[in-house]
Amino acid sequence: MDGAAAPARPAGLSAYVAVSQALGLTLLLTTGAWLGRYRGGVAWQSALRLNVHPLCMVLGMVFLQGDALLVYRVFRNEPKRSTKALHALLHGLALLISLVGIIAVFESHRAKGIPDMYSLHSWCGMAAFVLYLLQWLLGCGFFLLPGASFSLRGRYKPQHIFIGIALFALSIAVCLLGITEMLLFNIRDSYSRFVPEGVLANTLGVLLVAFGLVVSYVLTRDEWKRPPLAEELALSMDFKTLTEGESPSGGSQ
Amino acid sequence: MDGAAAPARPAGLSAYVAVSQALGLTLLLTTGAWLGRYRGGVAWQSALRLNVHPLCMVLGMVFLQGDALLVYRVFRNEPKRSTKALHALLHGLALLISLVGIIAVFESHRAKGIPDMYSLHSWCGMAAFVLYLLQWLLGCGFFLLPGASFSLRGRYKPQHIFIGIALFALSIAVCLLGITEMLLFNIRDSYSRFVPEGVLANTLGVLLVAFGLVVSYVLTRDEWKRPPLAEELALSMDFKTLTEGESPSGGSQ
Repeated sequence: MDGAAAPARPAGLSAYVAVSQALGLTLLLTTGAWLGRYRGGVAWQSALRLNVHPLCMVLGMVFLQGDALLVYRVFRNEPKRSTKALHALLHGLALLISLVGIIAVFESHRAKGIPDMYSLHSWCGMAAFVLYLLQWLLGCGFFLLPGASFSLRGRYKPQHIFIGIALFALSIAVCLLGITEMLLFNIRDSYSRFVPEGVLANTLGVLLVAFGLVVSYVLTRDEWKRPPLAEELALSMDFKTLTEGESPSGGSQ
Repeated sequence: MDGAAAPARPAGLSAYVAVSQALGLTLLLTTGAWLGRYRGGVAWQSALRLNVHPLCMVLGMVFLQGDALLVYRVFRNEPKRSTKALHALLHGLALLISLVGIIAVFESHRAKGIPDMYSLHSWCGMAAFVLYLLQWLLGCGFFLLPGASFSLRGRYKPQHIFIGIALFALSIAVCLLGITEMLLFNIRDSYSRFVPEGVLANTLGVLLVAFGLVVSYVLTRDEWKRPPLAEELALSMDFKTLTEGESPSGGSQ
């Protein structure tokens, strides 16, 4: 009753995180089922290399990116430093896996003589990946390395959060475009007859949207934000006092 | 120097709103240019009825929906009641125009014997429209009509805001899917040769994403939120005192 000072997990947060993970695993399984059942499976050393692309992008740019965003909500009572490292590590892993997926599609196009980067999917997808890489580099520079002043970090943080959620939403939109392209290239004539492959791939699209909605809801709900631990508050006040004088534009916001 | 109490427009807000409107008008013109130059134009009484669909959806589900979301930032010093009425009116207009766009595609499919609702675009688009209509009805019920208690409004408001921004993002994703479908149905063989129609339609997609990003940034930036006017604060305190006792679960949050 009087334990208000003890850090507790807010009601509902665990349930929403569990739903997000169930959705995330389901959408990975659905991607695998689509590629395995209707597209001949996934392999690097054959014409199936193209199928590495959707699997890597859903795993990297959606599932791992989403989970990297969630770490501050899930590990809300762990030290900030380790939570931050896990956040950067998961995003780094997401970037690596996505890079494999991008190489797969370029290599596959090259082998088949198909031009690159002409579709809206490729324009938005490449923009999402490059911005995601930049966001990761800037994030590491500002928040993991020493050097950035307290006030600079404070001013960059809201931009980092907004761009992070926006890139996550854009990544999901790009996956929906990829699903539509793949269906119209492969089953254009039978798609309108509600064939099982079309229904399965559409369902994957709906699952991607649902995963995006649940993760974004968890991230943006005010009461679920990670509260600073007592020692972080004390430390940040000390740090602010120490660095405010030398900040280039301290207190201007 | 000491005019802190006077309601002022925060620095930067006007510039971002101006950019959003320039992007919004550009994307409407780009849609018109695409349909006029490459798709034969727009007309109800002919085979061109299908082209009414993209024009109405970009106007209703993107431009007007985005502007309806922005009214609390733009008219930040007007009375809440009139801002709220404008918010509902613009969303209502967006819904009406979108309904015309949806009727256009169903009628056009019927005339040509094309099945409905088989694509991911149609699944996500119909979901976005139905949820947008529900959100509008619930919004009117909770915030425009009397009846909802102060605490009920307070608990619903964050959900209303989250769902509003999520539906706006989903609407833009659905437009990107529609562009991809239209290109792959019409210029599938020449699309990969970077023909002007493909480049123009891709550019429209990029403009849609840019409009979504700028509007979402304006909406989510903390310092740009509409502050309650002095008389609203006083009124809400009175109202809270009056209604708290009869609220079904007052103060449970």
